[in-house]
Amino acid sequence: MIFSSKLIEDAVAEFARLPGIGKKTALRMVLQLLKMEKDDVDGFTGAISQMRHGIQFCRECHNVSDGEVCEICANPGRNRGQVCVVESLRDVIAIESTQQYSGLYHVLGGILSPLDGIGPEQLNIGTLARRVRETGVTELIMALSPTIEGDTTVYYIAKQVTGMDINITTIARGISFGGELEYADEMTLARSIAKRLPIDSYVSVGGK
Amino acid sequence: MIFSSKLIEDAVAEFARLPGIGKKTALRMVLQLLKMEKDDVDGFTGAISQMRHGIQFCRECHNVSDGEVCEICANPGRNRGQVCVVESLRDVIAIESTQQYSGLYHVLGGILSPLDGIGPEQLNIGTLARRVRETGVTELIMALSPTIEGDTTVYYIAKQVTGMDINITTIARGISFGGELEYADEMTLARSIAKRLPIDSYVSVGGK
Repeated sequence: MIFSSKLIEDAVAEFARLPGIGKKTALRMVLQLLKMEKDDVDGFTGAISQMRHGIQFCRECHNVSDGEVCEICANPGRNRGQVCVVESLRDVIAIESTQQYSGLYHVLGGILSPLDGIGPEQLNIGTLARRVRETGVTELIMALSPTIEGDTTVYYIAKQVTGMDINITTIARGISFGGELEYADEMTLARSIAKRLPIDSYVSVGGK
Repeated sequence: MIFSSKLIEDAVAEFARLPGIGKKTALRMVLQLLKMEKDDVDGFTGAISQMRHGIQFCRECHNVSDGEVCEICANPGRNRGQVCVVESLRDVIAIESTQQYSGLYHVLGGILSPLDGIGPEQLNIGTLARRVRETGVTELIMALSPTIEGDTTVYYIAKQVTGMDINITTIARGISFGGELEYADEMTLARSIAKRLPIDSYVSVGGK
């Protein structure tokens, strides 16, 4: 594309660096920003700049945080005995949005993947073992990807905390609510039959 | 979605104001910006800010411009006798990207649409008539939408320049190159038969 304006060309090029944004979409966004009031555009750039410069990582759970300790760890109403182990911030947002979990989190920053050069030292696993040892954690809920790497990570973490008085669980896998059997993959369907539940545990869970 | 970080929540909300960006896409972009180096994020916000604050409108053709006169109007190599009349910057970018047109432009800023309150005073039509009168324009190429509003605008402009020694043309309408007849709309197909061309005018046009 030929823009005949260096200012527009630069802005489009910056947008096009974001994931899933092609040149045409980038141009659409730039034209929208051009139409907006200058103050609103300053609000847009300001929010992004403040976020990137202001964000910290919680010293407890490694979740992103506006301060030294994140809102979740700082909340006295959360159950400090439960820690849900996740890969990334994205998973924290997904679980928080269910409004059904009241424990804490531990963000690993990825999962073990030796082929990609990600070993235990690259992840926040050491601090998790310390948390379990030093604070009153009674349950670790593993919410990692159902892949070989995810399973390996679960086993590795379980090994790190053997001998400690702690309950390790994983989130339930199975057919989604509203999911049709015929579209489920064979692995999920096979496991959901093997791990079938008594009918009285089939309660509907609220949420939005 | 629940973010547990005001900084992230604000940045996502700002992105979600852009057209075609939902909350999930906005979050994906924000997470990508979080992963980027601070300098790169400053480059991103800086380019947008400079664009919005630095952009001007060319005093000749009303195209967006980095200075008082846009690159196209300032280019001595362009044919100053031809002026292509378009609705918006987006059309200028589309035509420039063909690299086949060497004349100038005139950006109307829309088309006549009385129902939406857009009359001749809301558009850059007065300055177009002045350009034709005062500069050596010999051809106006109308490249407006093939709609009733577009046609009305063409007729209105033609009336404004009657009596002046000028050739008014419109861009060719017809079946796209590579377009299949069976998928063309009836109007386009009917017109493309009515306005058929002698075979020797069927030359292939370069470009990218």
